[in-house]
Amino acid sequence: MRSMCSQVLRHVEKGGKVVVVHGGGSFGHPLAVRYKLNMGLSSDESYVGVALTRLAMRRLNEEVVKEFMKLGGRPYALEPSSSFVLEGGNVEEHLIKGVEVALEKGFLPILHGDVVLDKGKRGVTILSGDTIASFLALKLKADKLIYVLDVDGIYLEDPKKRPGAKLVKFLDREVLEKIEIAASGSDATGGLVKKIKEAFEAFRGGVKVVCFISWRRKNLLKALDGLKFKGTVIRGA
Amino acid sequence: MRSMCSQVLRHVEKGGKVVVVHGGGSFGHPLAVRYKLNMGLSSDESYVGVALTRLAMRRLNEEVVKEFMKLGGRPYALEPSSSFVLEGGNVEEHLIKGVEVALEKGFLPILHGDVVLDKGKRGVTILSGDTIASFLALKLKADKLIYVLDVDGIYLEDPKKRPGAKLVKFLDREVLEKIEIAASGSDATGGLVKKIKEAFEAFRGGVKVVCFISWRRKNLLKALDGLKFKGTVIRGA
Repeated sequence: MRSMCSQVLRHVEKGGKVVVVHGGGSFGHPLAVRYKLNMGLSSDESYVGVALTRLAMRRLNEEVVKEFMKLGGRPYALEPSSSFVLEGGNVEEHLIKGVEVALEKGFLPILHGDVVLDKGKRGVTILSGDTIASFLALKLKADKLIYVLDVDGIYLEDPKKRPGAKLVKFLDREVLEKIEIAASGSDATGGLVKKIKEAFEAFRGGVKVVCFISWRRKNLLKALDGLKFKGTVIRGA
Repeated sequence: MRSMCSQVLRHVEKGGKVVVVHGGGSFGHPLAVRYKLNMGLSSDESYVGVALTRLAMRRLNEEVVKEFMKLGGRPYALEPSSSFVLEGGNVEEHLIKGVEVALEKGFLPILHGDVVLDKGKRGVTILSGDTIASFLALKLKADKLIYVLDVDGIYLEDPKKRPGAKLVKFLDREVLEKIEIAASGSDATGGLVKKIKEAFEAFRGGVKVVCFISWRRKNLLKALDGLKFKGTVIRGA
């Protein structure tokens, strides 16, 4: 995490404006699964699940905030469960204004995947970090939307299982179809397909650079600075 | 705290709709003072102060959330630093919708005093629990606004120093003036005067019952249930 945070801060120190969105990782995800929160408020236990998942996400968020503080950053967390209301899974109300004002005032806004109130039948919906990132990129008219992965970008085959797998440098609708076929049946890559679709949406909406990269070898800083970087870039929607 | 929470839940179990707002207590307040956050973002250190104060408030909020969970409640925290944006100290944007939807869905919304973004020069403002409570009471058209104190209500003299001090049963503008004179020079009661003024505003705005009570002897439950309770009631604005 330290390297990622430090690359973000080096870009910010040069005057760059960055919004950080992190996922749930090993903190929120297992609880959301255990309490079946993808089904919403389906039982009395769901209310316990919502509270526990949110507390776990706050703990992860605290780690991120503290890491940025240690490095001299100015983090300002904006908790989606407090700042978004959905309706049937779609964002109905939000306090994006908070992100804008935080940036104006010199803060580094930090959001994360979260359990969010939903006016629809379900009552609550899991709003992923990926969805928030592409939503924010569009609303804030961002130049770049950078997805940081633990591999170098998007592959047609799982690079962890197939060491020879080739990195997709440019991603268009045609390549996505191939990935969808390859991913069918696998939950993990199912998440990746969703991530790519969110990315396409941001690209179609006008975000010029939408890419998937690893943070290794200062690659995140390069991408932020607009230098040549290794990764997958979305080219056609 | 347990007794307060349990009285709230007993009222909720009967179908009552309650929004809980807690203060900063010994968690947020000392940090806000140490980093002079009442002066806004006055130095680089202020950014550290904002982050630390917010983390401390989250810790206190977690205690409150967990206490309600232990008692079988359904707490849903709405963090003001994520859901309010001020301009020159006044609320400019807010996600009150979140409080409404949380209530609709059977949650117990919990807010608290917090450091909040401010579009004005200061950059951040301390938004007290008292201000949030009276703001919410007006926006949600609440029937009752109940301030829970560690004494039985409002006194003309400090009841902790003067055991014979008489409880003010009905509070109007005239009594407030007497309290202001008595409180001049004292910071602690200065806070009380501000609280009373917020209370008056809610009363003028149409909140029928605005009162100051202690939670002892089930007094909070009585006030929530609309039964006879001991305390100070606002009568004239």
